[in-house]
Amino acid sequence: MPYVNIKITKEGTSSEQKAKLIQGVTRLLVDVLGKNPKTTVVVIDEVDTDNWGIGGETVTNLRKQSLGGEK
Amino acid sequence: MPYVNIKITKEGTSSEQKAKLIQGVTRLLVDVLGKNPKTTVVVIDEVDTDNWGIGGETVTNLRKQSLGGEK
Amino acid sequence: MPYVNIKITKEGTSSEQKAKLIQGVTRLLVDVLGKNPKTTVVVIDEVDTDNWGIGGETVTNLRKQSLGGEK
Amino acid sequence: MPYVNIKITKEGTSSEQKAKLIQGVTRLLVDVLGKNPKTTVVVIDEVDTDNWGIGGETVTNLRKQSLGGEK
Amino acid sequence: MPYVNIKITKEGTSSEQKAKLIQGVTRLLVDVLGKNPKTTVVVIDEVDTDNWGIGGETVTNLRKQSLGGEK
Amino acid sequence: MPYVNIKITKEGTSSEQKAKLIQGVTRLLVDVLGKNPKTTVVVIDEVDTDNWGIGGETVTNLRKQSLGGEK
Repeated sequence: MPYVNIKITKEGTSSEQKAKLIQGVTRLLVDVLGKNPKTTVVVIDEVDTDNWGIGGETVTNLRKQSLGGEK
Repeated sequence: MPYVNIKITKEGTSSEQKAKLIQGVTRLLVDVLGKNPKTTVVVIDEVDTDNWGIGGETVTNLRKQSLGGEK
Repeated sequence: MPYVNIKITKEGTSSEQKAKLIQGVTRLLVDVLGKNPKTTVVVIDEVDTDNWGIGGETVTNLRKQSLGGEK
Repeated sequence: MPYVNIKITKEGTSSEQKAKLIQGVTRLLVDVLGKNPKTTVVVIDEVDTDNWGIGGETVTNLRKQSLGGEK
Repeated sequence: MPYVNIKITKEGTSSEQKAKLIQGVTRLLVDVLGKNPKTTVVVIDEVDTDNWGIGGETVTNLRKQSLGGEK
Repeated sequence: MPYVNIKITKEGTSSEQKAKLIQGVTRLLVDVLGKNPKTTVVVIDEVDTDNWGIGGETVTNLRKQSLGGEK
């Protein structure tokens, strides 16, 4: 019955990676807390790099300043 | 003054249906709790079926496995 | 399969009122969108009036300024 | 280490405005609570006017009824 | 840099279990997406059973109807 | 009309500090985006240090390892 929300920047996460996240989080809740997987809901939000800030700067700007940068 | 967030999968919900959800939830908060509708905020998030998981699987995969499937 | 989050100020909402909110929102999603009630999750957050602001002021302060005040 | 989520209607907010919001909120948490800006995360959600309700109506409908209308 | 929010019912989850959830989710994001664990934030919300609804009923009521019931 | 949610660890934030956060965020949205302060809602969530993780560890554990530690 748990509800999990994962927020990440929108930078090309594949359908397979999303499926793995959903599977992994659901399994974790079964293993650690004995939750029922059937009613465990996981929602992934992919957020534009203009709309995500860390350290007072948008990720868009952080990406420009570095080659690659933090994920 | 309440804030309500409704998350559903993105599968063709019409503007009329959204308007009905917003109207219905707002009325419910007036009826049950006597809240002021003028400052009641309702936000609907429509989530891609790749990004919604239940039972450890994405809704995209669940839709493929069944004809129709759960909403 | 929808997920609904209702945030209200913590001011003595009873268990019966919460049950009515949960029942009402779930029914609304069945009626308007044909959603499956069995996997519809509703979570109510009750927030301390010190921690809720509207118009730039905490609800605690708004309550002091008026007799009764807005809900 | 704080996490801040700002939800606004999607109505042409520029990258510069988003950067200012992120910078301003981060600074506020440093000034008021002495938080570490480096691990302060700010996420802005821009919501379609069809999906945002206030007073029981969608913002789309409110915009049609008035010239300009509330922001 | 991801942000994860886990919502579960408040029913005696121990500090050790919470630490395992935080560790497990953080590792998952490193393994699947290559995210930086240092800025990965996980927040667990424990919700009163009166305030959590599934199938149109509060978990408090569901617990009364069954012996044990779903987690 | 914006909605802002601020999540911080529960570590003795005073009512005055919360009022300043609410005032500051509301003013920021007026200054940067011209939003109406009257319908701007700010909700502060204070999260137990057992329930907040960063770098794969709970803040409770991080606090034990360092003298003071990060905020």
